[in-house]
Amino acid sequence: MSMTHTTELPRTAAVIGTGTIGASWTVLFLGAGLQVRASDPAPGAEAHLRAFVAEAWSSMEQLGHTAGRTLDAAQQALTVHASVEEAAQGADFVQENAPERLDIKRQVYAGLESVLGSDVIIASSTSGIMPSTLQEGMQHPERLVVGHPFNPPHLIPLVEVVPGKQTSEATVQAVLALYRALGKTPIRLRREVVGHIANRLQAAIWREAVYLAREGVASVEDIDLAVSAGPGQRWSIMGPSMIFNLAGGLGGMEHFLEHLGPALETWWADLGSPHLDADTRRMLVEAFGTPDPARFTQAVEHRDRALLRRLQALDADQHDTGATPAA
Amino acid sequence: MSMTHTTELPRTAAVIGTGTIGASWTVLFLGAGLQVRASDPAPGAEAHLRAFVAEAWSSMEQLGHTAGRTLDAAQQALTVHASVEEAAQGADFVQENAPERLDIKRQVYAGLESVLGSDVIIASSTSGIMPSTLQEGMQHPERLVVGHPFNPPHLIPLVEVVPGKQTSEATVQAVLALYRALGKTPIRLRREVVGHIANRLQAAIWREAVYLAREGVASVEDIDLAVSAGPGQRWSIMGPSMIFNLAGGLGGMEHFLEHLGPALETWWADLGSPHLDADTRRMLVEAFGTPDPARFTQAVEHRDRALLRRLQALDADQHDTGATPAA
Repeated sequence: MSMTHTTELPRTAAVIGTGTIGASWTVLFLGAGLQVRASDPAPGAEAHLRAFVAEAWSSMEQLGHTAGRTLDAAQQALTVHASVEEAAQGADFVQENAPERLDIKRQVYAGLESVLGSDVIIASSTSGIMPSTLQEGMQHPERLVVGHPFNPPHLIPLVEVVPGKQTSEATVQAVLALYRALGKTPIRLRREVVGHIANRLQAAIWREAVYLAREGVASVEDIDLAVSAGPGQRWSIMGPSMIFNLAGGLGGMEHFLEHLGPALETWWADLGSPHLDADTRRMLVEAFGTPDPARFTQAVEHRDRALLRRLQALDADQHDTGATPAA
Repeated sequence: MSMTHTTELPRTAAVIGTGTIGASWTVLFLGAGLQVRASDPAPGAEAHLRAFVAEAWSSMEQLGHTAGRTLDAAQQALTVHASVEEAAQGADFVQENAPERLDIKRQVYAGLESVLGSDVIIASSTSGIMPSTLQEGMQHPERLVVGHPFNPPHLIPLVEVVPGKQTSEATVQAVLALYRALGKTPIRLRREVVGHIANRLQAAIWREAVYLAREGVASVEDIDLAVSAGPGQRWSIMGPSMIFNLAGGLGGMEHFLEHLGPALETWWADLGSPHLDADTRRMLVEAFGTPDPARFTQAVEHRDRALLRRLQALDADQHDTGATPAA
C-alpha cells in the first residue's frame, strides 16, 4: 500500500461519472495528491461528491493515504465541471465511470477525444462491457483499457486491468504502473471474459452457498459463517492456489494434488447449479428481512471499521520480514 | 473469541490421533484450561505432540487463550497414553482424529465405548466420512457427532457440527455449546453432504480459479491476487450473502437481487468445469515450482503471523460497538 512509484503518477485526473465508484476513485486520487476534474450530469452531483469525499477522508487519514492534505485542501484540489469536455481539459489520465450503456460510454469517449492529447489513457471502470467493444470507433483506441476496481476503490486494493484487441502494450504497462503508484494491486487479464475475474470468483462461491441453503444443508447465516470464520480468514492473506501450495508442505503443489486432488474432484462433481428462481429469491430475502434504517447504518459502519482493520493488517503483512506468501 | 460459557467446558478431553489436526485440538483444549489425555500409535508421537504444543503456545499467548497457564503447566496438563482405552479413562469429552478409514475409526469407537460412560460425547474430525456411517454398530450411536475443524483448529474459529441419523439433539446442543465455550464458531449442518460446507465453498472458488488459469485469462499468481486483494478482504469479515445484502443498501437483498441478480446468473452460466488432468496439474505445479526449504519456512511463518493479525482484527470486530454484520 506504500506509494513508492510517485514518478508514475499523473498530476491531473479526470473522473467522468461520480456515482459510488467514481466518487470513490476521486477520494483515492485526492489522497495521492492529484488534482481531480470531475463531471456528472446528475442533479446535485457536486454536493453528493463533496459529501462523499468528506465522509471518506478519515479512512484515508487512518491509512496514511492523504499526501499530507487536509480535507479542505483535498476539496480545493477537486473541481466539478459541467461537461465531459471541460473536465478533460488538462487531464493526463481519465477514469470513466459512466452508466453501463455502450451508447453513453461512446458519447463520453467522443467528448474526451475532442479535448485530450492522443497519449492520455482512458481507463473504464466497466464490469459488464468488453474493452474491445468500447474502443470500436475511437480515434485512438490504443489508449482505452478497462481498469475495473473492486468496490470501494479508495479502500480495496484490487484493480483488474483488461486490454481490448486494439489496446497498446504501452497503455497496459502505463496503467499498471499508475495503479501501483496509487497504492493499488492491479492484475493483468490476458483475455476478455464475462465478469473479469473477481466477480466470477465471487459468483462461484455464492452459487454453492445459495445451493447449500436451498437444499437445506444449513441456514444462510451459518453458510456465511462457514466463510468468514473459516477460509475467509486465509483469503484475506493469500489466494486459494497459494493456500493449497503451502498446504502441500515441502512437497508443494505436487504433493497437495496427489494427496487432496481426488477429494477436490469428488467435491467438484457434487457442487450445485441453482437458479435465482422465485423460491430461491424468497429464501434469500427472508434470511435477512427488510433492513431497518438504524440497524443498516450501524452494520455498514461496523463493516467499514472492520475493513479498515483488515487493510491495516495487510499493510503490516507487507512490512513483515520474510517471504511474502502472495509473491 | 471470548470464553464466557465456561460452565459448558469439560474438565478432561481425550484426543485420539495426534497428527496435525489432533495436535492442534490439543493446543486449543490446553489453552482453555482442560486436562488432555492423548493417544496415537505412531512412533515418536508424544515427542511430536509436545513439540507442536511448545511451538503453538506463543500464538495462544498472543490471543490471550491460555487460561493463565504457562507452557510448562500446559505440558503437565497433557498426558500421552499407550492405548485408546487408557486415554479414555476419566475423559468427559472425546475428539477423534484417527486416519480417514472406516475400519480404524470403528475400532477406535469400540475401544472408547468399552471405557466411557454412556453420556460422553465423541466428536469426529472427519472430513470424508458421513456421521451416519461412522455411528453404525456403536453401542451408543446417539453420542457420535462430526465436529469438523478448519485447519488449524487452535486458530481458525470455524467448526462444522454434523449430526448423523442416530445422533441425539442433546448431543448436538451440547457439542455446539462446548465449542462455543472453547471460543470457536460452530455451525450446524442439517443434512450430511460430501465435504460438509467450507470445503465445498473452497472447492467452488478454486474450480473457477483453475479454470481461468487453464484458459489463459490470467496467471495463477494474479488470480490469487484477485481474491486476496479483492473479495478476500471482505470474506474475513462476513460471508457472501451478507455482503450482497448490505450491497443492496436500504433495499437489502431484494434490491440487490433485482439490480445484480441478472448479472450473477450470466456469470454463473459462464463458469468453467475443469478437471485436474495432467496438463492442469503441470500448470499448477509449474506456477509455484518446487519449494525451497528456507523460503518455505519463511512463507509459512509469514502466513501464520498474518493469520494472527486477522484473528486479532476479528476479536476487535467482535468488541466493536454497533451491530455485528455477521449476526
